[in-house]
Amino acid sequence: MTELAVDHIGIAVRSLEEGTAFYRALGLVEEGREEVPEQGVRVAFLPAGRTRLELLEPTGPASPIARFLERRGPGIHHICLEVDDIRAAMTRLKARGFELLSEEPQVGAHGALVCFVHPRSAGGVLLELSQPTSGGS
Amino acid sequence: MTELAVDHIGIAVRSLEEGTAFYRALGLVEEGREEVPEQGVRVAFLPAGRTRLELLEPTGPASPIARFLERRGPGIHHICLEVDDIRAAMTRLKARGFELLSEEPQVGAHGALVCFVHPRSAGGVLLELSQPTSGGS
Repeated sequence: MTELAVDHIGIAVRSLEEGTAFYRALGLVEEGREEVPEQGVRVAFLPAGRTRLELLEPTGPASPIARFLERRGPGIHHICLEVDDIRAAMTRLKARGFELLSEEPQVGAHGALVCFVHPRSAGGVLLELSQPTSGGS
Repeated sequence: MTELAVDHIGIAVRSLEEGTAFYRALGLVEEGREEVPEQGVRVAFLPAGRTRLELLEPTGPASPIARFLERRGPGIHHICLEVDDIRAAMTRLKARGFELLSEEPQVGAHGALVCFVHPRSAGGVLLELSQPTSGGS
């Protein structure tokens, strides 16, 4: 079995400008931004070692991030673990009774295959599994 | 300026046994456990690439993790960024008006120097800065 690694940490913010200011003060460098209309978010990428902080700003009130902000306020939204075979990981988790949020992997940012585990099955953590495209994460 | 890296992600759990079961099913391997009486926690370490998941179980009702569990339930508690000079990082943040939870670095697990940034200053995130001892993190 190959090593699992933390790919990124998703952090809900009301505004990317305001949200990135703190991390820039710390010395992190923003790598770029991307709008992901399917998720209703604008994302700022801040590499931090081998992992990455992803600041998530909602693009409208129907965005899951907007609902998260309403309910909990800004803060850590999810953790993403990189796996080399997402279908195998999904099969293994389902066989052990863990609940996934989709039956099939979805296409995420940068074309990765992704799947979320229900927080109920992962100790209150919204956990994303991600299998990068062969071009890299 | 050297690279900042995510050292670990702290996750509050009611029980280490229950909390680690999901990550073990995923294929992560537990590296060890440690009791940190100063923080009122038992910690299970699960390396995930260059970073680490730290599952935190309270040892008693006065533990900050017990209070977190009461208020929010289990889930992600904090992110820790490794810095090479914690005093320089603290000075830089204070100069820019960000609020820290201590004036001086504290001694954390493995003898690292640590400091927490107030979630109010870090977009709702409880952020730990950690400068490993020269022996490594």
